Amino acid sequence: MQDLSDRLFAEISKIRLIDPHTHINPLAAASTTLNDLLGYHYYTELAHSAGLPKHAIESAKGVELAKLLIKQLETCTNTVQYSWLIEIVQSFFNYQGDQIEVGHVDSLFAAAEVKMKAPTWTDSVFEKTGLEALFLTNDFDDPLEGFDTKHYIPCLRTDDLVFKLDQPSVQNRIGKATGLEWHGIEAVIQKLFEKFVAKGAKACAISLPPDFEPIRPTATEFRSALDAIGLGTLTAEHKRVVANGVFYLLADGCEANRLPFDLMIGVRRSVYEQGVYQGQDLFDQRTSLYLYRQLFNDKPSVTFFVSVLTHGQNQELTSYAWIFPNVVTSGHWWYSNIPIYIEADTRARLEAVPFTKQIGYYSDAYKLEFILPKFNMYRRCLARVLAQDFVIGRGWSEERAVALAYEILRGNVERIFLPNI
Amino acid sequence: MQDLSDRLFAEISKIRLIDPHTHINPLAAASTTLNDLLGYHYYTELAHSAGLPKHAIESAKGVELAKLLIKQLETCTNTVQYSWLIEIVQSFFNYQGDQIEVGHVDSLFAAAEVKMKAPTWTDSVFEKTGLEALFLTNDFDDPLEGFDTKHYIPCLRTDDLVFKLDQPSVQNRIGKATGLEWHGIEAVIQKLFEKFVAKGAKACAISLPPDFEPIRPTATEFRSALDAIGLGTLTAEHKRVVANGVFYLLADGCEANRLPFDLMIGVRRSVYEQGVYQGQDLFDQRTSLYLYRQLFNDKPSVTFFVSVLTHGQNQELTSYAWIFPNVVTSGHWWYSNIPIYIEADTRARLEAVPFTKQIGYYSDAYKLEFILPKFNMYRRCLARVLAQDFVIGRGWSEERAVALAYEILRGNVERIFLPNI
Amino acid sequence: MQDLSDRLFAEISKIRLIDPHTHINPLAAASTTLNDLLGYHYYTELAHSAGLPKHAIESAKGVELAKLLIKQLETCTNTVQYSWLIEIVQSFFNYQGDQIEVGHVDSLFAAAEVKMKAPTWTDSVFEKTGLEALFLTNDFDDPLEGFDTKHYIPCLRTDDLVFKLDQPSVQNRIGKATGLEWHGIEAVIQKLFEKFVAKGAKACAISLPPDFEPIRPTATEFRSALDAIGLGTLTAEHKRVVANGVFYLLADGCEANRLPFDLMIGVRRSVYEQGVYQGQDLFDQRTSLYLYRQLFNDKPSVTFFVSVLTHGQNQELTSYAWIFPNVVTSGHWWYSNIPIYIEADTRARLEAVPFTKQIGYYSDAYKLEFILPKFNMYRRCLARVLAQDFVIGRGWSEERAVALAYEILRGNVERIFLPNI
Repeated sequence: MQDLSDRLFAEISKIRLIDPHTHINPLAAASTTLNDLLGYHYYTELAHSAGLPKHAIESAKGVELAKLLIKQLETCTNTVQYSWLIEIVQSFFNYQGDQIEVGHVDSLFAAAEVKMKAPTWTDSVFEKTGLEALFLTNDFDDPLEGFDTKHYIPCLRTDDLVFKLDQPSVQNRIGKATGLEWHGIEAVIQKLFEKFVAKGAKACAISLPPDFEPIRPTATEFRSALDAIGLGTLTAEHKRVVANGVFYLLADGCEANRLPFDLMIGVRRSVYEQGVYQGQDLFDQRTSLYLYRQLFNDKPSVTFFVSVLTHGQNQELTSYAWIFPNVVTSGHWWYSNIPIYIEADTRARLEAVPFTKQIGYYSDAYKLEFILPKFNMYRRCLARVLAQDFVIGRGWSEERAVALAYEILRGNVERIFLPNI
Repeated sequence: MQDLSDRLFAEISKIRLIDPHTHINPLAAASTTLNDLLGYHYYTELAHSAGLPKHAIESAKGVELAKLLIKQLETCTNTVQYSWLIEIVQSFFNYQGDQIEVGHVDSLFAAAEVKMKAPTWTDSVFEKTGLEALFLTNDFDDPLEGFDTKHYIPCLRTDDLVFKLDQPSVQNRIGKATGLEWHGIEAVIQKLFEKFVAKGAKACAISLPPDFEPIRPTATEFRSALDAIGLGTLTAEHKRVVANGVFYLLADGCEANRLPFDLMIGVRRSVYEQGVYQGQDLFDQRTSLYLYRQLFNDKPSVTFFVSVLTHGQNQELTSYAWIFPNVVTSGHWWYSNIPIYIEADTRARLEAVPFTKQIGYYSDAYKLEFILPKFNMYRRCLARVLAQDFVIGRGWSEERAVALAYEILRGNVERIFLPNI
Repeated sequence: MQDLSDRLFAEISKIRLIDPHTHINPLAAASTTLNDLLGYHYYTELAHSAGLPKHAIESAKGVELAKLLIKQLETCTNTVQYSWLIEIVQSFFNYQGDQIEVGHVDSLFAAAEVKMKAPTWTDSVFEKTGLEALFLTNDFDDPLEGFDTKHYIPCLRTDDLVFKLDQPSVQNRIGKATGLEWHGIEAVIQKLFEKFVAKGAKACAISLPPDFEPIRPTATEFRSALDAIGLGTLTAEHKRVVANGVFYLLADGCEANRLPFDLMIGVRRSVYEQGVYQGQDLFDQRTSLYLYRQLFNDKPSVTFFVSVLTHGQNQELTSYAWIFPNVVTSGHWWYSNIPIYIEADTRARLEAVPFTKQIGYYSDAYKLEFILPKFNMYRRCLARVLAQDFVIGRGWSEERAVALAYEILRGNVERIFLPNI
């Protein structure tokens, strides 16, 4: 079983990747120092959770910051996030050993800097990762300039429009980005879609709290809620109506422009208020895709690729994708992106959802170097599921199992996001 | 481990079955064409979800419908539902190959029709399946005639009485079936129990939405809610009271007639409004057996055998059956009827619920041919759990493990439903 | 894999234990008859659930009670709880066989009585269990006298103070224990902490219902809710405010006295009203750690070690402990204390929580003899996780895996509860 699983992993690893969701900055995709790796919120939040004060992390710099984090991460060597780091330094810097010793940080820091400064670094990470292209997460006012959209595919991220339209800073950004007034939000969104599509955007995305329930307000309700922003009489109910109204305008935009809509469901922001940067959000398991029934019925021609934050909700995702033609399962998000949940959730989806409706994985990475270890984590889980359930359990040939993996990892990304390529 | 598991599967498969819950029509139990198999909602809904328009499915007929579905199901070959189909054509029609090619549909369709037209077909499916009897799901106005109740055991299904008593069509059906007025619902239900028991019914059954909370209304509350139906002044609260009042009358009937009450908890009907026939229902994971505490306390002499729709709720089911003498675990329902959830849920129940209080599996089948592959799916899961947890984990002999399987699969069905046999 | 897992289990079993949560009576820690074992609620509730009437259990005595329970437990031989009993009689009384025959009860009962009456019995159970010390669960009015606090470490249990302050019996107990009036609850709690700390208490503990949401009331709100108790005008809202106010006073006490606060989240009391003693409580899965966000933010210097009652909530526990520095994962509680959930929950925590923030296990035992089989159950699960995920999956040496187990089982108990030892 282990041999079989290893063989399948090796074969699956040859499939060249298009990473369908990242937070990479296309103008600075790869890391320039070891701290770009260690600054990933997974490490700062784990180190902080394990005892390192926030101010210590925020005040240290350079190799001292690296030592501080590596030292504290000695209490996190069991975590899968730590294993990504080890896999990076082993794969990209030929680091020997399965734990980074504080005594090695000076030399590792220097060696990494040299390698990362090479003008070929970004290309070599692409190559070693077997990566052909990746999706970005672009704010609505991102200029979308200075990069090759064949390798870096834009995606319109819309959280601010839906949940922060009452904030003057967002209203100003809308004005600058579109030349339009924010309260003419219908025209604003239409213009944003035009711009993003013209720049090669292939998806629209949003993250949503566990109690969000998309129900289209009437035009009158929506208008009076927007007016309340201007009048300074905004209530919680107005805020709900504004969010729903804008959300539905985005769904209209996806429909009109044939863009898939990426729903990332379940996050509560700023739960741990004193946490480190990007290490403050958590969730509430009490949510349901039943809240989205009206949306899925209203927009049959929009492909919703859905991420859920909890393993518990994966059965809902599996079942809704099994029934609704326009619901697609998408990756393994954040707090569900650890092997126990990846493996179980992958197994459920492969047992019950048409394979053409599954986006197996995305890295969610902020820096290019993380795509390799995160995809490897997923591929190991996938290899185990294929070995146990399909090759042993159902008597499939290994070739057939790898062909299934191809669709989940690559074929569906092209089919769903890039139908014209 | 795999050998051990295979040996246990082979032994378990010799246990002759009484299937405790199906939707089989006893007057047309077996299929007559390949389309009776392909028309199972699992195939039409998966094909539709994978891209086949509903109208295409509904307008095609005969071998063209079969080709249409088989073609679309090429995108669903990974699903366990597809594996049931393969197991049927392999077991019953000697089909070679692990995928049905569109090019083979003509010949398969013709061969199946010949086999199914043989007057011995039903008996041969019974025999090959090792099936002795099965439970039906009978509407309250089912005449219950024309079949042998030794093989086809009636069960009173009550959803319409509880949730649709305000519908004129249901009121008319009550009148025709009982000769009584619907608003005398107490007498109606008493008469229905008499009729069903006289015809050999061995259970009463109902499916329930996730927010249903059985609390007995007072006689006055119930009467005035029933009156509101007649007066056309029915509110949502009246509807809730009517449902609760009728539900409790059914519980009374189960108590008086010593019938087990089959509760199938968690379904939301018509979530995907434009879905194919029987492919519209889903669920909301936010539910709890805590909602049933009053019922379980009120009716200690009624055996409630309970199905839950979600894997998440299986821990509640396991725990409530571990504590309440009158709660029995029942099978693996619908969206939880896939191997990952069957195996985990079986493991939990075997670890914590007295083995005499577990109904291992029911097929839920609409056609006789599906009982074999669905029970095989379950038996493979059960064999893995017995191999790993009991033979390897606790040092049980294989004979002892198979004896446990016997009780779960067969002994308890007789003990709970057929104590007089 | 099985050999590897067995080897790891053997090594892990050598780690000497401090059991961080039990209900053991230090004045009668070990059992004196077989009925002290069979009287554990796991056996009485399973026997009752399987059909034995409550009055039959309550009216039988001596060896007849033992026979009654053993006879009924023949229907529960599959359960893991039954396997604890077998492990006890095999380990401590050299019982042969993997099931207790009713015919052997007389001799087993007598043999057990002889052994248990030996003055060395308690010490020999400590020794055989590899146990150095254990934590108690002490009511606020426990005299905390007559035992050695090196072996029996006090813990202040606070459910009655938080949820039953309106009961005259509790008010009287407060008066007797502290010499203070109950409505001066601030002074009462300060005095209780002083007393417990002086007696060597190392933790404060409470169990909480699924809908409890700690939010500190204002002083005025709290005072008027306390007054309502005295005036006999207590509403449900007052009760909520009192519970919250007292709960926060306890959190203040933990902060001032540097005691960890043990939160056991999710239980519903007396769900099965007619159940046997301690066999009446269940749960409602609809809960969230999101309810505790304010508390975790308000008290950064208090270590909250948190138990959740459901497997579903373990992902929340894992994630909150991964983000919040003051949240620690704690054991596998009650309805989650069966191998399927222990193994999965352990895996998730080891994948994502710093290993210094995990209390692997506590026995929750009422009698000393249960610590061995319950910890063995946990150690088998832990050995499997270490074998599969760390030694095979990540290439760790067996020594490194055992060193990780040491921290989870022993090191963290000292680090978190006994920093001065």
